Amino acid sequence: MSELVKVGLIGASGYTGSELARLLAHHPCAKLVAATASGERVGQKLSDLFPSLRGICDLELEEIDLDKLAAQCEIVILALGHGKALEIAPQLIEKGVRVIDLGADFRLRDPQIYEQWYKLPHTAPETLQEAVYGLPEWNRAQIKTAKLIANPGCYPTSAILALAPLIAADAIKAHSIIVDSASGVSGAGRASFGVGTHFPELFGDFKVYNVASHRHTPEIEQGLSDAATNSNDPDKRALVTFTAHLLPIARGILSTCYAAPTEQCASGMNVHDWREILLRRYEDEPFVRVLPAGQFPQLKHVVGSNFCDIGIEVDPRTGRIIVISAEDNLLKGASGQAIQNLNLMCGFDETAGLQGAAIFP
Amino acid sequence: MSELVKVGLIGASGYTGSELARLLAHHPCAKLVAATASGERVGQKLSDLFPSLRGICDLELEEIDLDKLAAQCEIVILALGHGKALEIAPQLIEKGVRVIDLGADFRLRDPQIYEQWYKLPHTAPETLQEAVYGLPEWNRAQIKTAKLIANPGCYPTSAILALAPLIAADAIKAHSIIVDSASGVSGAGRASFGVGTHFPELFGDFKVYNVASHRHTPEIEQGLSDAATNSNDPDKRALVTFTAHLLPIARGILSTCYAAPTEQCASGMNVHDWREILLRRYEDEPFVRVLPAGQFPQLKHVVGSNFCDIGIEVDPRTGRIIVISAEDNLLKGASGQAIQNLNLMCGFDETAGLQGAAIFP
Amino acid sequence: MSELVKVGLIGASGYTGSELARLLAHHPCAKLVAATASGERVGQKLSDLFPSLRGICDLELEEIDLDKLAAQCEIVILALGHGKALEIAPQLIEKGVRVIDLGADFRLRDPQIYEQWYKLPHTAPETLQEAVYGLPEWNRAQIKTAKLIANPGCYPTSAILALAPLIAADAIKAHSIIVDSASGVSGAGRASFGVGTHFPELFGDFKVYNVASHRHTPEIEQGLSDAATNSNDPDKRALVTFTAHLLPIARGILSTCYAAPTEQCASGMNVHDWREILLRRYEDEPFVRVLPAGQFPQLKHVVGSNFCDIGIEVDPRTGRIIVISAEDNLLKGASGQAIQNLNLMCGFDETAGLQGAAIFP
Amino acid sequence: MSELVKVGLIGASGYTGSELARLLAHHPCAKLVAATASGERVGQKLSDLFPSLRGICDLELEEIDLDKLAAQCEIVILALGHGKALEIAPQLIEKGVRVIDLGADFRLRDPQIYEQWYKLPHTAPETLQEAVYGLPEWNRAQIKTAKLIANPGCYPTSAILALAPLIAADAIKAHSIIVDSASGVSGAGRASFGVGTHFPELFGDFKVYNVASHRHTPEIEQGLSDAATNSNDPDKRALVTFTAHLLPIARGILSTCYAAPTEQCASGMNVHDWREILLRRYEDEPFVRVLPAGQFPQLKHVVGSNFCDIGIEVDPRTGRIIVISAEDNLLKGASGQAIQNLNLMCGFDETAGLQGAAIFP
Repeated sequence: MSELVKVGLIGASGYTGSELARLLAHHPCAKLVAATASGERVGQKLSDLFPSLRGICDLELEEIDLDKLAAQCEIVILALGHGKALEIAPQLIEKGVRVIDLGADFRLRDPQIYEQWYKLPHTAPETLQEAVYGLPEWNRAQIKTAKLIANPGCYPTSAILALAPLIAADAIKAHSIIVDSASGVSGAGRASFGVGTHFPELFGDFKVYNVASHRHTPEIEQGLSDAATNSNDPDKRALVTFTAHLLPIARGILSTCYAAPTEQCASGMNVHDWREILLRRYEDEPFVRVLPAGQFPQLKHVVGSNFCDIGIEVDPRTGRIIVISAEDNLLKGASGQAIQNLNLMCGFDETAGLQGAAIFP
Repeated sequence: MSELVKVGLIGASGYTGSELARLLAHHPCAKLVAATASGERVGQKLSDLFPSLRGICDLELEEIDLDKLAAQCEIVILALGHGKALEIAPQLIEKGVRVIDLGADFRLRDPQIYEQWYKLPHTAPETLQEAVYGLPEWNRAQIKTAKLIANPGCYPTSAILALAPLIAADAIKAHSIIVDSASGVSGAGRASFGVGTHFPELFGDFKVYNVASHRHTPEIEQGLSDAATNSNDPDKRALVTFTAHLLPIARGILSTCYAAPTEQCASGMNVHDWREILLRRYEDEPFVRVLPAGQFPQLKHVVGSNFCDIGIEVDPRTGRIIVISAEDNLLKGASGQAIQNLNLMCGFDETAGLQGAAIFP
Repeated sequence: MSELVKVGLIGASGYTGSELARLLAHHPCAKLVAATASGERVGQKLSDLFPSLRGICDLELEEIDLDKLAAQCEIVILALGHGKALEIAPQLIEKGVRVIDLGADFRLRDPQIYEQWYKLPHTAPETLQEAVYGLPEWNRAQIKTAKLIANPGCYPTSAILALAPLIAADAIKAHSIIVDSASGVSGAGRASFGVGTHFPELFGDFKVYNVASHRHTPEIEQGLSDAATNSNDPDKRALVTFTAHLLPIARGILSTCYAAPTEQCASGMNVHDWREILLRRYEDEPFVRVLPAGQFPQLKHVVGSNFCDIGIEVDPRTGRIIVISAEDNLLKGASGQAIQNLNLMCGFDETAGLQGAAIFP
Repeated sequence: MSELVKVGLIGASGYTGSELARLLAHHPCAKLVAATASGERVGQKLSDLFPSLRGICDLELEEIDLDKLAAQCEIVILALGHGKALEIAPQLIEKGVRVIDLGADFRLRDPQIYEQWYKLPHTAPETLQEAVYGLPEWNRAQIKTAKLIANPGCYPTSAILALAPLIAADAIKAHSIIVDSASGVSGAGRASFGVGTHFPELFGDFKVYNVASHRHTPEIEQGLSDAATNSNDPDKRALVTFTAHLLPIARGILSTCYAAPTEQCASGMNVHDWREILLRRYEDEPFVRVLPAGQFPQLKHVVGSNFCDIGIEVDPRTGRIIVISAEDNLLKGASGQAIQNLNLMCGFDETAGLQGAAIFP
């Protein structure tokens, strides 16, 4: 076997970090060689923090040392809260390392939109210009040669995969879109624990959060607008109402997306025609499964896997299109997608290390 | 204490039936005197079927005998699958009994719409004309004197309570409405068990069902249209896209409703103005709580109670109105509402037997 | 209606506090007139902390002022972490107030055992001598006149109710007892939130905790030893192995208890004879339900109610007795039992305010 | 790559069947070539029954044809209810196929014990003599050459792995053992759906079942007795009280096992000494992780993996030993163990296809 690509991980103490360690532990072509954390966690094993990794990944956590990481690794993955990669990513790139950032710092091409939604000055606008939005189904070519991947957000992945083909086909009105999503609590991260995520408070619960103000909204709009054939036309730029809900489960995102058909598609198209648009776009994609007409995704069929399942329906009475997508928020919505990007960057089989089916039931 | 009103229950073996028995067990002014079931359950105690009721309601289940029930009871509640009340309700009414029907048979005023959605001929169109839709917040006066109450469906209750004040105020466009709801599995009933509701299949899951074809759609439309000031204007009749999701929990419905403002309300109104419409409508209602601006309902705050909590927001970017409501599908969405109707019919305090708070956490 | 007994609550911000407020809100003979909290919660409404109580209990939280509470209240309930009642309870009693303490400070009659298990000096040994262990089924007479009730722990309630009749009948060996219990996470309290109770960590999980060192162990032993006919005989004093497990649910304790029969009961007794011991002891108890032979408790039949359900079986191959009990840890295991004690102290019907059945399903 | 070993699966429509298909889909050395079902499922794809397998295993289900299977496969795995393998296994063996039976038919060496517990005549006593109990940690050598593997039950795997080393070391009394286990609902199988496993009935629940009569009891006793150094001594033959509980989750078994130390071990041994017994026995085992002293297993650390985690404690007050084990009931407790056996039978790396860590959180 040829030599394994060496990967570093900055921010190993959260759920996306532990998922990356898990995926890399058995990756046929890549290997996690260094993982960092902060504070008292330095010196602990990753498997002390995540006993599920006992015997799988017992790497000792180190303090961040960018020079050392640059010397050791070909690729470094950042699994940090937003704001931190602004400083780290440019340095790593300068040191010749390729970077995959799981945070939000390089996802929005317009730094002003970043500042408006994240309430932080964007201090690395030049690096931002080099960043490639890491949604392989839409940006595969650029990902392969990218120095910096902005790994998509969990909700945007689900919404863009569901709707972008319809936008690209000019089949739905870009201003009519509502994305109604629900996520398991792992999406909040591990460090976010508090009374609001205290187990008894959420068991048996369901609620909305960040109504009309969720930070993934502009990312969804950017991703959909990019798919439009003529995105200079403001009417083609997506304007989205996005609502996030918290499911009383650990993992999974299901998005129910609503849109009005464009005039050209408002009549004469049945569900099979609509499904055909998705199918044509995704039939060669290894991780997107367009379901048969009349079938719809459910979380249990994707959780634990890197798949995004998509189903579509037409409401015959209102004419609205309803597209439903399901993914594991920590896999296709985060760490699995990061490995998919890594595979593309390194020229590996895109599915390497990602072939497992959902754990059902 | 004055004498208790005698109540009969036809169809005691489901979840709405057991909830009715539980609520009536400690009702200060009414009493369950007879409960029926079919097949091998006849002769068993209700507490054999529902051991939670041991010592609370040990009534023996009887075969249906309408004459006997009519002789014993002032009010009979029907907790049956659709279709069965078509035959029973008219007979009971003829025998001088007042009826509350928890099923769908008398909810839709237009028998053709019933036939279209339920795939059954409506065999009691005259009785249908006497039926009162039992949503106390909107039909209190008629409920008091009704012979036959069509107790609302669980989803329609949540959607109508959320949106009807906005329709009544001509504040939202009647054709712009999307209702995106999620329910606990008890909404499927007890008799519906099967591989699809087998515990391991749904644990940790989330999915849509009956997409663009759920039978509660016309009921939501009827309830909203009734609230319109000029419902003869077809533009004022609600046309709704309704999507139901299955939550991996036992109880609770949360509806996230989207609508576009009418032209007169499209600018110059902030969230407080919008909230004011709801507040003004519901401020004297004992079971509807309009939440403070910026706060939104969650299931755990209502499950186990007869409350429906409602929150509202405006999406500043798209102008859309988002209204969220939460209720216990078996209480305000079914049996609690039936008792509320019973209280009104009998002249009791509307909250009698229904005052408990949600069981939290 | 006669005047309501005025009750104060010190420590209203936890789950036992909010349950007390909920139960008292509709108690026919008692009323919550003051509730305290600390820090930034002072001045907030209880329903700000627990929105489920909106419109049910909107009492404003106050700082602790014992004089004021003594002037206002006939009974004060303490819902505090251990250690704090040591100081407060004696003062309240001196001011003429009767006290129900939900904490552990006055449960163990021997202050040395308290110090050994709770790692705190017991600074109120004289008050301790006045305290009555508030398990009504075993101490009803003393509770009625008590100045200070030590409200039992959640696990001890479940274990003592299950086993004490067998100990009292000298039917099981006091040194053979194993209590294997599992509790919902609300037993950890609200203030205990942390990464260990972060929702994603416990969803779908099950684990032991405090193995062979749980503080409820000596309380179980004391309660069982008290039931022994000749508790001066060291062989009759219970010696218990107790293991607590954490269930991935919000509420409920189920205890599976194992014991060897005494020689006199080792042969010739079938399950009906064993059950008869329990039945005879509890047949007039309003909140203990001894199940039919061959039936066993399950949490869903008691959660939301003040019942403790008990079932018994004999292992024909090993001769061991297996007793299973189920209760709601926040009701019969804490706040419901406190109200039961309050009812006895005030001469009310023992079931006042506690008659609700479990919320099923 | 060398040629893949061809595997057949009889009974693919249950959870153990779908897990086998999932594991074999990416097994480096084996391949599922045929899968059977009955009734209307014949002709459907496995992924129609289990949409999680879409694109992973789309094999078409066939009717059982033993000749055809024997011609196609080197190994056939039976995933059937008990009784059915009695007929099928002998025929397959006669046709030269090696068999792994996931059912109970060949687990108990004494056919009379089988008949007593399973209420069926054992019609293949000669084949039974050839069967090897497929617990690799205890029977590795015989498994390698076996014609017929009796794959252990889920509870017995957890109990035997936890206790057998202590029995083998003559450290615990064979008649003192209590095994208190809790399993996720998938252990009941997929075909077992009914009102008892209807989602709303079990959500938030916990209960015992088959108290003192669970069929896994004699299997646990046989496995433990086999480990005894002198199992002809009746005092060394294990006599076990076993209690099974149903957890409101999909997957995982946690067993809490209690035993009294033998006289030779009753004093002078601390928890480290006890742990040492386990560690020495399992230190080279790829799928058993003996946890550090003071740490205990939890389901989330093993579910989704083939690991069995074990922790041990001594109750200093009673002297009892407490051993806790955790496993995924469908993996190490069923299908994962079957693949582990298959790997041994075929001379593959024992961990082939089984290396994944638990899916956490």
